[in-house]
Formats: sequence, C-alpha cells, structure tokens
Amino acid sequence: MHRDWQSHYSRQAARMHLTVVSGPSYPKQGEGFISLRSGAPPAECIPREWLERGMERAWSAPQDLFGYQSAMGAWDLRVLVAERMRALGCLDVMPQQVMLLSGAQQGIDFLARLFINPGDPVAIEDPVYPGALQTFDLCAPRYLPIPVGADGLDLDALERTLATERPQFLYTVPTFQNPTGATMPMERRERLVAIARAHGLILIEDDPYSALRYAGKDVPPLRALDPEVIYLGTFSKTIAPGIRVGWMVMPEALKEKMYAIKEAADINSDRVMQQAVVEMLRTGFFPDHLGRIRALYAERRAAMLAALAERMPPDVRWTEPEGGFFVWLRLPLGMDVADALERANARGVGIVPGTGCTAIPGGQSDGMRLSFCAQPPDAITEGIRRLADVIASLRS
Amino acid sequence: MHRDWQSHYSRQAARMHLTVVSGPSYPKQGEGFISLRSGAPPAECIPREWLERGMERAWSAPQDLFGYQSAMGAWDLRVLVAERMRALGCLDVMPQQVMLLSGAQQGIDFLARLFINPGDPVAIEDPVYPGALQTFDLCAPRYLPIPVGADGLDLDALERTLATERPQFLYTVPTFQNPTGATMPMERRERLVAIARAHGLILIEDDPYSALRYAGKDVPPLRALDPEVIYLGTFSKTIAPGIRVGWMVMPEALKEKMYAIKEAADINSDRVMQQAVVEMLRTGFFPDHLGRIRALYAERRAAMLAALAERMPPDVRWTEPEGGFFVWLRLPLGMDVADALERANARGVGIVPGTGCTAIPGGQSDGMRLSFCAQPPDAITEGIRRLADVIASLRS
Repeated sequence: MHRDWQSHYSRQAARMHLTVVSGPSYPKQGEGFISLRSGAPPAECIPREWLERGMERAWSAPQDLFGYQSAMGAWDLRVLVAERMRALGCLDVMPQQVMLLSGAQQGIDFLARLFINPGDPVAIEDPVYPGALQTFDLCAPRYLPIPVGADGLDLDALERTLATERPQFLYTVPTFQNPTGATMPMERRERLVAIARAHGLILIEDDPYSALRYAGKDVPPLRALDPEVIYLGTFSKTIAPGIRVGWMVMPEALKEKMYAIKEAADINSDRVMQQAVVEMLRTGFFPDHLGRIRALYAERRAAMLAALAERMPPDVRWTEPEGGFFVWLRLPLGMDVADALERANARGVGIVPGTGCTAIPGGQSDGMRLSFCAQPPDAITEGIRRLADVIASLRS
Repeated sequence: MHRDWQSHYSRQAARMHLTVVSGPSYPKQGEGFISLRSGAPPAECIPREWLERGMERAWSAPQDLFGYQSAMGAWDLRVLVAERMRALGCLDVMPQQVMLLSGAQQGIDFLARLFINPGDPVAIEDPVYPGALQTFDLCAPRYLPIPVGADGLDLDALERTLATERPQFLYTVPTFQNPTGATMPMERRERLVAIARAHGLILIEDDPYSALRYAGKDVPPLRALDPEVIYLGTFSKTIAPGIRVGWMVMPEALKEKMYAIKEAADINSDRVMQQAVVEMLRTGFFPDHLGRIRALYAERRAAMLAALAERMPPDVRWTEPEGGFFVWLRLPLGMDVADALERANARGVGIVPGTGCTAIPGGQSDGMRLSFCAQPPDAITEGIRRLADVIASLRS
C-alpha cells in the first residue's frame, strides 16, 4: 500500500514550505564559497567558556532541573529578564509577565495560534522576516503587507490599510529589522503606538537585535511606550541560538491562555539551559561579552558598507543599518534577484533573495539580504566584489 | 485603556484550558499530603550523575552545539534512536525517518497541525491522555472517543465508528496506556493494524512507557506491524522529562512537511541536550539504569495493587497494569469522582479525576487515575488507605 499522504493534510499544513533560509534550501557550498546568508552568530561570537561554566554551576543549583517544570519557565531567569526589560525602559515589567520560550520563534507561533483564525487578516512588514511568514502560514491568515523603508514601517500605508481592514495584529521588528536592517526613530514609534491605540490594533514587537548596536543612539522598544505591546526577546543573537532561550513579555490577561498553549505545544522548555543562562548572567559576564561582539560586528558592518560603496554601480542602493546583522540591497531597475541569485551561487557568494522575504507573490524581486555577521572582513570585501561582478554581468 | 483580549482570540485558542494535570491546577499540598497524581519519574529515578557526565562529554564533542541546527535534530542521536526502534521490532527504521522533538508532546502537536482542519473528526481513546486532548483542542477537531478496556482499545467500537466516519487519524497509547495502564495484546494489535489498512486510517502510536515493564512479556509496538504507523517515543520517562528529548518515526513522505512545521514552531530543539543523551547512551549505562528503575517501580506497583486488594470494598474495580505508571480505578455505582476528589484532597491524598481524561462532557465520572511512580511503597499504602476511607465515607 502506498498512501497518498498529501490528501490527508490540513489546509494550513498543505501551504507549508521550507523558507529561503531553511537548512535544506541552502546551496551546496564548495571551498571558497562566501555565504552572506547567515542570520546566526558565528562560532567566534559564542561565549562557549561562559556557557560551559554556566552549565557546570547549573548542576550544583538546588533546583530540580530534570522533572517537568512550570510552563512559564525558570523563575530566576524570569526575574533577570524583567530587570533587563526595565533597563530598556519598560519600567512596569514584572517577572510574572515574562514567559520563557524555546527561542522567540516559539512566541511568534503561540501568538499566531492565539489570534489567527484561518482567513483572518494580519498586518506584516514587507519585506518581512521569512521565519515569521512560515510560522504565520501554518495558521493560514490573509496577509496585509505594509512597506518597510529605511526608517522602518511606512505608517501612512499602515493607516490607509487600517481605514478598511481590522487586522488581528501587526507583527513588526522595529529595531535593525530582518531583512532590511531598518530602525524606526522615536517619533515614528510614538506615532505607531498612537495609531495602534486609536484602532485597537494589537502590536507584536519582535526584538532580537536591539542589543547589537554599532552606531547611533539607543531607541526604546515599543513596549516601553505601551504596556499592551506584546514583546518577544531572545538570547539567540547575544549568547547562542542553539541554547533555544527566548522570552515573551505579555499583559497579565494573556497568561493563563499562554500557559495552556505552551503546555499543549511542548509542556515546558529545557530547564537546564535556562538555569545555565541564569548562572552565566549572575557572573556579570554579559556587558563585556556584548562589548566584544559589538566591536567585532561593527568591524564587519564597516567592511561591508565600505566594499559596497567602493564596488557597486551608482544605481544600486542599500541600507546602512546602525546595528543587527543585515544590509538590504536593491538591484537596478529591470534586474531580477532570481538571476542574481543563480549567478551569485555560481560565482561563490551566497545571498538571501528578497522574493523569500515577502507575502506578495513576485514581490521584492529587486531585493536581497546581505548578512555581515558571520564572515571576517576580508571575506566580506571579497564577497561584495563578487556580487558587484554578478550585477555587472546582469547588465550586459 | 483596558483591552478585551478575549474578543481577539482565535476560535481554537478560546477553547484552550489548563488540563487536570497542569501545574497551576494542582491542589495546595500541605505536609503529609500524598500525591498519587504524578506522571513524571521522581528524583530518585533520574540518572543525574550520568546526565552530568553526558553533558560534560557533550562539551568536548567536535560538533557545533550552539548554532542553529537541522530541524531534524542531531544525527548521532537519530542513529541511536533508529537502532533502538529496530531492537523493538521495527526492523526497517532508518535514522532518516527519525525526527527529534522537544518531548513527544511536540510530536502530538505537529501531527495535529499536519492533519486537523477545524471540525475534522479524529478518533481518540476514552479515557485519554489529558495532555493529548489539550493539544488536539488547539486544532479544534470533532472527537470520536473509542472506549478503552483492560485489554486496550475496543476494536468493535472502533469498527462501528469507522462504518460511518472517516477520522483524520486514531491516536492511541497501546502499551501501559495513560490513564488506564491497559496494554493491547498482540492479536488485538494485528487486528487494529488490519482495520486501519482496510479503512485507510492513519495510526498515531504514542509509546512513552513500553520500556517500563514489570510483569508479563514484551509486545512489539504497532509500528513493528506496519511502517505507515507514525510513532512517538521519548526519554522523558526513562531518563528525565526536563531534558525534553523525544522523537517521531515517520514515513519518508512526511519528512519535508514536518521539517517546515518544526522550523515554524521553534526552528530546532536544544542540541546540547541531544548530544548529552548521545554521550550517555554511548557509555552503555542505559540497560542497567532501566533495570534499576524497573525494580523500583515494580515494588511501588506491587504496593499499590496489594493495598487496593486489602483496602477497597468489593464493588470498586481497578486495572492491574504490567508496566508504566498508572492504575485506573472505577468507583462503585452512583459515586461521583468530583465528590471523591474533594474529599481526597481534604483527607490528604491526590488523585487525577477521570472527568479530566475524556472528551465526553460528564464522561468518566466514575474513574480516577492513580499513579504509583512517584511515592515510596509506604506512602502508597497509606495513600490507598486514605482513599478507601474516602470511598467508604461517600457511601454513607
């Protein structure tokens, strides 16, 4: 018997596909290939010794690490996260509002399940973080894409959308956005929060990168401006993705529902890793570590921006992000990123095509995401040189 | 502004509630309270030293443990799990078909999302594992409850259901079922697989307990009889729940879809713990460890069955499971478990009421789950004595 499994899939699951940044969709990378695709901190930015020390101390902690746990996560880490949130300007955040997650991705999933009926409208950024799109897909919403420019979300476009639509929420990465690197200035944040209040719009703020600023001044998260904003944070970019420790800050009213959803999804997250993070943070290593990786990323960002300025023809445009991992590049009029991607792979440089970062079929076909986080400056310079060659070759 | 959050919930999320075994729904337990509620191995059954040794070896492993990982999980552990599955009689299982999960619970969630549209019929056991019910609830199916007796699922009832319904799948715990402790004998398994084939019914086999047998002879899993059975396994009961390492064995045809669902849900599970389990298993500690905890659980089971035989009036019935964690008790005609629960809590003994283990409103109101895994024999004897008093008091 050979079963036709596809005929059994739910409508939501039938829509699911691998993202443009999924493991299996990466091109084969031979020696000398320079990937500018990565959204993960490279090995040299992972505080391995501190992690090991944290794990060792976790063993000797008096807590039970090995039984089932509260779905909310380790209290001690919730306390430390709440402190961190208050330091970011979210002065009212208490540990009771913090839920620990298996990465912020899990928070995106839970919020999608909490708010989306199949067919419900949701407002997302365009271009958008591909992983969020994949997660929302599994709840089968109708997307309302709002353009993102160099200063973040286009609020006029948002208001035009809200004139005729009532989305379940707006999902936004206001600081060092994935994939554009764009950051919303303070006055835009205030206007966004005011718009959301006026329309009863729920704001979901995903904030993986704000601790990684290399230029300019810190801007407080949206959550600092309104306690009803649902906030997602993570240690994936500042400690390590593999430990799978993220968090959600939510209004108390959502807590019991979230508890039930977390239990349904996986009962609770790995408590050992949560305790290891507690032990690490208690050593006080974090500010120095952040300083070290910020300096390293700053150098890589500078290398990328310098190489782009030196190599790219004048009709190519790109963002100049003040932090995070990504530069967004726009090809000259008439060029398609699908062609660029194919030639770039052949030429030995990996990029993320814009077409994978949008809910609009055929959208963002002139865009690409370039990551500077995971390659040393020399490789970045060489990678951009190759990419410039590719773009030149597309012109002929 | 006070937002009415409930008005924003999806229909599925609005249904969600804490289970009868959820952390927050446990009664306050004073000193001397004897909980017979637990579904988790107690501290004395967790191989803490082996876990610590496994973690230490994991550090020195050459693999990258701290970056993002394949959504399928650590290859080395998939190899070891496939070996284990072959040892259980599933001779065709290869590591390629094994996906590692954050506990088997996550597998229940993924399969629910893969197969259930809101309103779709799904066949479940009655009584059923409350955690599965909670997870399915989040996909809003229509339940087709199939009775479970001392020999497991009532296959005549299943056939009657299949005469008029086409459920998306049957979810079953065929060995040492939660909550009844019942095990399907071999000939019933063969008949179940034949029924499923004849009706094109997908079988989901959840098998957390089969390694914990204290009497009788091993019976192979359903998966050994048919490679299209989707199998969920876990180290939660044999190593520790807190490490969150479970697995799914699935037909190759489902792999890409599952990969996308896993990415959407949480990208990948904690790789450090997976590697720690690899290192632990490679030491060869597992058979001795299993022998030790089996002996301990066997003694506790014997204590519970002896106390029940000694203390309970003749019109109380209970199962005599050959393994796992649970005995299922039926109250005499006319008694309600809600009354028993209230008096039991007051009398200092904790039970799980049957009403929390069913999709039928008001169902299983004469049933209760008694766990023998987490209390020493003396406490079990005393707990059953108190419960017998409670039942006697309900008669007057």
